[in-house]
Amino acid sequence: MSRILVDGHGGDDAPGIVIDALDRIHKEYGDKLTLGIVGQPDVLQPALQEAGLSDAVQLVAASEIVDMCEPPANALRRKKDSSIHVGARMVRDGEWDALVSAGNTGALMAISKFILKTLPGVDRPAIASMIPSEGGRTLLLDAGANVDSSSEHLTQFAIMGSCYMQAAEGLESPRVGVLNIGSEDIKGTDVVKMAGASISELDLNYIGNVEGTDLFLDTVDVVVCDGFVGNVALKTMEGVAHFLMGNLKRELTGSLMAKTGMLLAYSGMQRLKARINPSEYNGAPLLGLNGIVVKSHGSADALGFSRAIEIAHREVESQLGTRIVESMNKWLER
Amino acid sequence: MSRILVDGHGGDDAPGIVIDALDRIHKEYGDKLTLGIVGQPDVLQPALQEAGLSDAVQLVAASEIVDMCEPPANALRRKKDSSIHVGARMVRDGEWDALVSAGNTGALMAISKFILKTLPGVDRPAIASMIPSEGGRTLLLDAGANVDSSSEHLTQFAIMGSCYMQAAEGLESPRVGVLNIGSEDIKGTDVVKMAGASISELDLNYIGNVEGTDLFLDTVDVVVCDGFVGNVALKTMEGVAHFLMGNLKRELTGSLMAKTGMLLAYSGMQRLKARINPSEYNGAPLLGLNGIVVKSHGSADALGFSRAIEIAHREVESQLGTRIVESMNKWLER
Repeated sequence: MSRILVDGHGGDDAPGIVIDALDRIHKEYGDKLTLGIVGQPDVLQPALQEAGLSDAVQLVAASEIVDMCEPPANALRRKKDSSIHVGARMVRDGEWDALVSAGNTGALMAISKFILKTLPGVDRPAIASMIPSEGGRTLLLDAGANVDSSSEHLTQFAIMGSCYMQAAEGLESPRVGVLNIGSEDIKGTDVVKMAGASISELDLNYIGNVEGTDLFLDTVDVVVCDGFVGNVALKTMEGVAHFLMGNLKRELTGSLMAKTGMLLAYSGMQRLKARINPSEYNGAPLLGLNGIVVKSHGSADALGFSRAIEIAHREVESQLGTRIVESMNKWLER
Repeated sequence: MSRILVDGHGGDDAPGIVIDALDRIHKEYGDKLTLGIVGQPDVLQPALQEAGLSDAVQLVAASEIVDMCEPPANALRRKKDSSIHVGARMVRDGEWDALVSAGNTGALMAISKFILKTLPGVDRPAIASMIPSEGGRTLLLDAGANVDSSSEHLTQFAIMGSCYMQAAEGLESPRVGVLNIGSEDIKGTDVVKMAGASISELDLNYIGNVEGTDLFLDTVDVVVCDGFVGNVALKTMEGVAHFLMGNLKRELTGSLMAKTGMLLAYSGMQRLKARINPSEYNGAPLLGLNGIVVKSHGSADALGFSRAIEIAHREVESQLGTRIVESMNKWLER
């Protein structure tokens, strides 16, 4: 049985949507999950009570809150009683199995890394982000935790991403690719070339270089890249989607005839919206930590936050950490 | 009067779409543009004749063709009588004002750089790509010519991009941003931080860091980045657009009711399609060369190729090269 602790603060609409997500998860999973919320009791206690969750969700006290724009180093050093600090310590001490937070990403990573440390063989934990694709979903890592990653780091990301897709998504042999600017081996920076050579020697289903267009096709399951590149790709993706859907909406509501047409096509449009709904893809695991931490998007709704809780649950159940350590050992013993 | 030479080979449907584009441009511009086509006479002569363009378009002979997948170094050294080589030499010698090609990008850049050299002050020419946005269009550079750009290179890209948007697009004071993973100055790699500091000291309308989402908003006109990052961003963009539009089409033709709805919304859908039509944004100038070269996308249609010719025309008319040299001098004399 997984014991999941969620951060009651952080994110655009905390604690409201956090409580709603807990309610949703409690209704679906009942006693199969032990749920907790960490944060300021005077804020969280009444909210839990109002939602009728006082019995279902344990309250863990933490007096401080990390601001969304606070420098990570500041949050790490000066806010030792923040909900993130307290949550990470309890995961380290085995009191809870996982922490889920919609708070400041940099601070969450810095504090988690400081308190939980990394798994043996992992130099830098990575943030892994899920993307909708023709094949279902593609995992992109690193999504922004590490700039200037070396080829060794990218190799570690490949191992962790592959383990994750096996453990949490049930893929037997995830296709792993390195994000590059062409499919040929001679393309790209020295770092990606060396990473490709190194990953190809591992016991992974390595398919070589992939390009930005491949992210959405059924050609690859795990895409490895430097955090700067991954973050730009993810935000570009978000930008295009907003731009296209915004323009579509304007065009389809611009005239009575278009509006009527849109009503007739309503169910199709709804299916498309559901398919690309960011909530469905919410929850970015911080891979490589010696403990389970999942980041929920700051603007995620209750459905999105509940998806992040489910990801934490799957990580616990599938013993992802053990799998990563085994794969890392195989690599290091080569 | 601009004298534009187009490459009769290269691209998916050459010389067919190249001839169609010349026809289109000739009809629109008449004697205001002198047009030429460079390549194998036995292929191009009959094609021109068939299109009734034998008098309107001058034929320049070149016996070799650079393959789309040929390594640039090979094309540079071994195919001295290729259409790209011959075209670039004629631009260098002042016989033509500009070369437009849909051929092998790497080879086009390598040969152009070798023959034309760079403008004083420019270390590395960049490929600049235009993106549709809420504000009209955003210029992204470098789009893939240079991996591992230094902060000096990024600074040069900023100057060249700003000059281009002034000269070719008529913007008075283009907003220039550095592509980063956050808006704060502390974000990103050392290279982008140093580039930001350096660009902020120039006589440009520098607005600071921008993110992937900004590319499509009306917040910035020129976005500067390393070629690896820019190429990933552009291909990701292309991937999302295909994925979304493909899914939309499937949903809107999936049932009779949806199909009827789509017919009613037809004009709106057509307007959207026109707005994001890649042909309208085709034509990527190779900025920083001592001569005008424009790359047309390999899969561009005749409309797209004609847009690339128009970009070359605007570069000639606006004396972009002179403007870039003046701006570079101001920077170097600081």
